[in-house]
Amino acid sequence: MLERFKVPIEDQVRVPEDSLRETVTAVFEKMGVTPEDAALGADVLTMTDLRGVETHGVSNMLRAYVSQYNQGTLNPRPDWRVVRESPGTAVIDADRGLAVILGPKAMDMAIEKAREVGVGIVTMFNAGHSGGIGHHAMLAAKQDMVGLVTTAGGVQVVPTFGAEGRLGTNPIAMAAPAKTEPFFLYDAATSAIAGNKLNLARRVDADMEPGWIAERDGTPIMEERPVPQDRDTYWQLPLGGTREMGSHKGYGLAMLTEVLGTMLSGVLPSMLDPTGGSKHSFTAYNIAAFTDVDEFKEKMDRMLQMLRDTRPAPGHDRVLYPGLSEYEEEQDRRANGIPLHKEVIEWFGDICGELSIPTLRTM
Amino acid sequence: MLERFKVPIEDQVRVPEDSLRETVTAVFEKMGVTPEDAALGADVLTMTDLRGVETHGVSNMLRAYVSQYNQGTLNPRPDWRVVRESPGTAVIDADRGLAVILGPKAMDMAIEKAREVGVGIVTMFNAGHSGGIGHHAMLAAKQDMVGLVTTAGGVQVVPTFGAEGRLGTNPIAMAAPAKTEPFFLYDAATSAIAGNKLNLARRVDADMEPGWIAERDGTPIMEERPVPQDRDTYWQLPLGGTREMGSHKGYGLAMLTEVLGTMLSGVLPSMLDPTGGSKHSFTAYNIAAFTDVDEFKEKMDRMLQMLRDTRPAPGHDRVLYPGLSEYEEEQDRRANGIPLHKEVIEWFGDICGELSIPTLRTM
Repeated sequence: MLERFKVPIEDQVRVPEDSLRETVTAVFEKMGVTPEDAALGADVLTMTDLRGVETHGVSNMLRAYVSQYNQGTLNPRPDWRVVRESPGTAVIDADRGLAVILGPKAMDMAIEKAREVGVGIVTMFNAGHSGGIGHHAMLAAKQDMVGLVTTAGGVQVVPTFGAEGRLGTNPIAMAAPAKTEPFFLYDAATSAIAGNKLNLARRVDADMEPGWIAERDGTPIMEERPVPQDRDTYWQLPLGGTREMGSHKGYGLAMLTEVLGTMLSGVLPSMLDPTGGSKHSFTAYNIAAFTDVDEFKEKMDRMLQMLRDTRPAPGHDRVLYPGLSEYEEEQDRRANGIPLHKEVIEWFGDICGELSIPTLRTM
Repeated sequence: MLERFKVPIEDQVRVPEDSLRETVTAVFEKMGVTPEDAALGADVLTMTDLRGVETHGVSNMLRAYVSQYNQGTLNPRPDWRVVRESPGTAVIDADRGLAVILGPKAMDMAIEKAREVGVGIVTMFNAGHSGGIGHHAMLAAKQDMVGLVTTAGGVQVVPTFGAEGRLGTNPIAMAAPAKTEPFFLYDAATSAIAGNKLNLARRVDADMEPGWIAERDGTPIMEERPVPQDRDTYWQLPLGGTREMGSHKGYGLAMLTEVLGTMLSGVLPSMLDPTGGSKHSFTAYNIAAFTDVDEFKEKMDRMLQMLRDTRPAPGHDRVLYPGLSEYEEEQDRRANGIPLHKEVIEWFGDICGELSIPTLRTM
């Protein structure tokens, strides 16, 4: 994550993992979620914070989920069901359940299918937010599989040359296991910048880079500028920013997630059905169906080591690979706690009081 | 395609589709390829030219293939075989065959698997170039499936912050059918610009945009500059160009193609095995396993129509969707011929003379 998005040291309050897990579980339970699902949701969010993906962890998201449960747009006890199935595929109607919690269940189903026929894909519609989808992809990697997860939903991103939002920030995530190296873990929006990063940027007063957002008439903003406070004054741009820099690729990749998650769920995209919820796809590739699992992991090690051994360009300390800094953050945060913004701590104080649950323990 | 890459009108010679098909078939046959495979390869290349994807059609690629057949790096009669298989998966050792020709066979295999278990993925290693992979994805779309194809190979792209090439331009393609609209067809490199575009740019004297290539020490070049003639003086950058603009996403997506094509083929990436050839993955999703095929296509129509109906930003005539301009080019070129650069026509004159085959008929 770019430095500008990190919580400034002076605003950080460190919270131990187990305390965050307990409090988030209690909040979910108070929303009407079953104890088992509450613990699952808390695990997904806490793991995401442990990996340093603050945009999709507790601080940015729990507040939104609480408000959606309170408004009734999220269903705490969804009667989710498989509406069509084949040996390698399934489609789930999530019944407005939070995909943070249903995502691991869908990925488990994909993993079971991949054990049987080599590959399994489960699509999901009528769902809430998925949290950091890299987490769901990692569930496959931990079972000796490659995991691929996509999400579609929202209309905050303009297509290339467009003046009207048509697509969400539609992320793609993939995870693959290695033997001794931290696992490969890619998880990123197909927009120039994740939507949640704009929220983070507002909190920490970070500037926008050229090519991240567009004027309301669709013209890409090509100078540095503070984040607009009013969401109705700008659009987000696809990855690439401008046509010359490849925004048609970000646009096309966003469409790829609409085809996999939305169209293969048999429903309409947000641009045509704004209240249809989010659509997700969860794929597991059983490594053993393709090659020897141990050799796969050894080859992953060699590839990932070669990437981190790459000579850096002037002005840079080292070359990372996707998943490496997330692993390092996890080690640090397990030992030293998760740094939350003091505003988030205040919010926890309020919500814990309101819901009559024990307050979050800080370090 | 950006205007700058198009063949200037004064350098264009129009060639009818059937003539190009015949001549390319004859060239392949003279390379030792079977008549059936030669016709298949000519079909893939001609279709790619018809769609206006000049980078991957006859003009840019046939010359390279002829030279690889002549050098013996490509095998005209590959003894390709499935080395591991499950109901939904297969791994193919291509025996140095050209993936332009083997790609449709692999996709056919994926389609058959998808008919049985809902989804099929076939990976391929030890292969030659795949041509425009969008073509292979379209084969699935024409069978009422969604097609996904990836390619990995080469080391011309630096990872974010890196000063050494580690990845190929590793494209991703997806195709999905619609009812009355031209099919969705996405096909693009995960690098800021396709490698073949640099060749086109050299031929038509086009400038590089900021963020397309890097100095040899890995520093992104952020001003417009003519294409360097010497390939050893620059690196290509991942989609995004710089870290601020999202190059870690282009880098991560390139890795995604290495995991799918290379790792799930059980082999090493080009960065560790430069002579290992290209690695591909071919996935077919059987729409009928997920939803009603007719409804799928109607929903695709509505989505694609809404995208093309999007109000354009100032300075732009219209909003496209991936596959729309390719379809329009195909209609035009079927009627009016395929515009080849006069230099390409000269090359055809030479090669047809050399191989004693009838020369290419122009319009």
